[in-house]
Amino acid sequence: MARAKAQILTIGDELLAGDIVDRNAAHLAARCRSLGLEVHRIVSVADRHDDIVAAVREAARASDVCLVSGGLGPTTDDLTSRAVAAAAGVALARDGEVVAALERFFAARGRTMPPANLQQADRPAGSDRLDNAIGTAPGFSFVLGGRCLVACLPGVPRELDAMMEQQVEPRVRAHVDLQPVARRIYRALGRGESAVQDAIAPAIARLRAGSPGAAAVVVHYRAHTPEILVGFEAVPDAQGRTASSEELCELDAPLQAALGDDLYGIGEADLPTRVVRSLARARLTLATAESCTGGLVGAALTAVPGASAVFPGAIVAYADAAKQARLGVDAGLIAEHGAVSEPVARAMAAGGRAALGSDLCVAVTGIAGPDGGTPDKPVGTVHFALADARGSSHRRLRLHGDRGTIRRASAAWALKLVWDGLVERGLASVQALD
Amino acid sequence: MARAKAQILTIGDELLAGDIVDRNAAHLAARCRSLGLEVHRIVSVADRHDDIVAAVREAARASDVCLVSGGLGPTTDDLTSRAVAAAAGVALARDGEVVAALERFFAARGRTMPPANLQQADRPAGSDRLDNAIGTAPGFSFVLGGRCLVACLPGVPRELDAMMEQQVEPRVRAHVDLQPVARRIYRALGRGESAVQDAIAPAIARLRAGSPGAAAVVVHYRAHTPEILVGFEAVPDAQGRTASSEELCELDAPLQAALGDDLYGIGEADLPTRVVRSLARARLTLATAESCTGGLVGAALTAVPGASAVFPGAIVAYADAAKQARLGVDAGLIAEHGAVSEPVARAMAAGGRAALGSDLCVAVTGIAGPDGGTPDKPVGTVHFALADARGSSHRRLRLHGDRGTIRRASAAWALKLVWDGLVERGLASVQALD
Repeated sequence: MARAKAQILTIGDELLAGDIVDRNAAHLAARCRSLGLEVHRIVSVADRHDDIVAAVREAARASDVCLVSGGLGPTTDDLTSRAVAAAAGVALARDGEVVAALERFFAARGRTMPPANLQQADRPAGSDRLDNAIGTAPGFSFVLGGRCLVACLPGVPRELDAMMEQQVEPRVRAHVDLQPVARRIYRALGRGESAVQDAIAPAIARLRAGSPGAAAVVVHYRAHTPEILVGFEAVPDAQGRTASSEELCELDAPLQAALGDDLYGIGEADLPTRVVRSLARARLTLATAESCTGGLVGAALTAVPGASAVFPGAIVAYADAAKQARLGVDAGLIAEHGAVSEPVARAMAAGGRAALGSDLCVAVTGIAGPDGGTPDKPVGTVHFALADARGSSHRRLRLHGDRGTIRRASAAWALKLVWDGLVERGLASVQALD
Repeated sequence: MARAKAQILTIGDELLAGDIVDRNAAHLAARCRSLGLEVHRIVSVADRHDDIVAAVREAARASDVCLVSGGLGPTTDDLTSRAVAAAAGVALARDGEVVAALERFFAARGRTMPPANLQQADRPAGSDRLDNAIGTAPGFSFVLGGRCLVACLPGVPRELDAMMEQQVEPRVRAHVDLQPVARRIYRALGRGESAVQDAIAPAIARLRAGSPGAAAVVVHYRAHTPEILVGFEAVPDAQGRTASSEELCELDAPLQAALGDDLYGIGEADLPTRVVRSLARARLTLATAESCTGGLVGAALTAVPGASAVFPGAIVAYADAAKQARLGVDAGLIAEHGAVSEPVARAMAAGGRAALGSDLCVAVTGIAGPDGGTPDKPVGTVHFALADARGSSHRRLRLHGDRGTIRRASAAWALKLVWDGLVERGLASVQALD
């Protein structure tokens, strides 16, 4: 029994020029997955009439649902409505209610509507309007070729997200017979992709041997350096048999045994969210003292709503003078060991803790490159320390990649050091959290 | 004269599940553009043999170059080599040199090669190997159907990037006749997409009237909230006529006149890069004092290589106590006006400047949400201040969107305030910088 199939079509010159990454495709794909649709293809084309027409027709032939993003704006390169109408073989019709709403939108802001915005009131004749509560571009949907529900959404992320949830998902549920797929994600930080696979292979083999449905489970690996996420999806086999949620949950114990401390969580919740929640539960505060990460660790923590309960702040001491003045790192220590060293990392953590009055403080100092490496301390050398009232723990790593990769990896490892510290203190543990 | 056409094919369950955004597609597209290839389609499919075969065949029929990313790793879901061989109608062949290199790779790290890695030595018979200097998975390339150069690369970004530049681009240059397209990007922060379009429409009309080639220029708008980038591409018209680089450059003056202070730059270089370079040229240092951004402004500045010359550090004072203790903000000021207010923003900037001994300091304090808004100060209210030795300037904004959007927009606006301050002082100006 095949699952209903979806295709995602994103439209925009900026995608084909590589000017932006396609977050809309990722967002729509994630929504489809949680609905139980199988996304079999994502296609991006430029703002060109013929390319859009061809892509919509192709998608409609092969899919039960086609989600289209972009090209509904007011500018001259916004061609989606016209092209989708052509793909459907219908004319464009102007929606008087939308014209009125556009005029109200601009009046409320004390502005005259630019004439260009009028085209946002046009959509294929006979289509359903998808209202946009936030922006000026409504979307539209219709069934093409008797099978495929085509829904067109504006490319502005927050408008797309809201309209997908409020306008499109109810129509998808009404249009196709959905079979949500059970899914379980394991989150590891500490070893590479093939090492993770080798470690968990016996557990996967035992899972597959358990039932015909379990034999069909799809395993996928996602390397988000330095993290590795392993996803298990209970897709149906040719006879429609699937693994149960319970069968997937039975992986927890053997995967924890196989991956040890590298496994920090199960489910969608990321490391910053888990760190913030565990700190909040323990009523502890955490400050950061950052050099090469330049504020990334603080930014990751404060991306979590509610971070204010646990995060008083950060001292970003990029210059050595700031390490001395703001974190109280002894100048002699820097002179003797260098700013990227164990003693300085420990002193930064202790100094940050004192400066911000926190229970814990994590410090990061490293060489992100492209310059600054030496034979002793090559680019990618990073020292971490975690201080509490009793002292500090330390870790030295050699990370790889360009400046951005090393900085992001350093921020992730800093949070992993905090996590490990919380686990040691019995204040955090691997658990399922979405 | 049509340009050589490229298609990008990215492979991976994680893409179709929406687990990751497709940065590889964006990177490869940007490289194609700079080479002078027209990317006409980007397709993503899951790790499924038949889907990969179909996508490769389709791409090869319609394109001169097909770049494939992903599925060359050591895990069981890595199917690209086998599927691409099937699309080409050839067998897989194991490359003894790669087996030896893999064994050396693991030996150098003191590890035994997991058997799974052996499949990385397999590629379609008759293909050229694309060496991977960084990781374990080599790529391969070959010409399919007499027309299309197919190049398969691993999905690990830094491996993909290096191999694209070193291995694939020379082969592309040898395979097709490249016609690089002149391109000019204008970067604005301060008004919305349709307002930008309206303001510059007369300048675009004058450009188009100038020559047949200029009439064919493609204009695209990219909203990266709160920034709007406008790109002009001198693509050929049906007769092969294109605008010259000089014609595009003649847009500079009228666009600057039309957009005023909202236009901060021309070309690829982003706002943090321009701020860091202008500060370095003026021999000034800039610190940050951050609340709602949690370190994002410092992180943006330190993403620029060489930031250490201008950025001593940041004080992230998320809690009010930290604003008082670390930035010297008067408790009475917070009590009277609230932490999100003009007086507190100005005090944070002055205090950060004093604490970090910098010439300038930019401060941000705002309500990122989802909670914490009031009728007086709704979510999205953000105060900015820029302090120097003489005092401070201030700006209050009401930003829109979710927590992440408001935080990113706040960080961008903070840098724009610094930029405007540098422009006022005669230390920065709109200029072309890639």
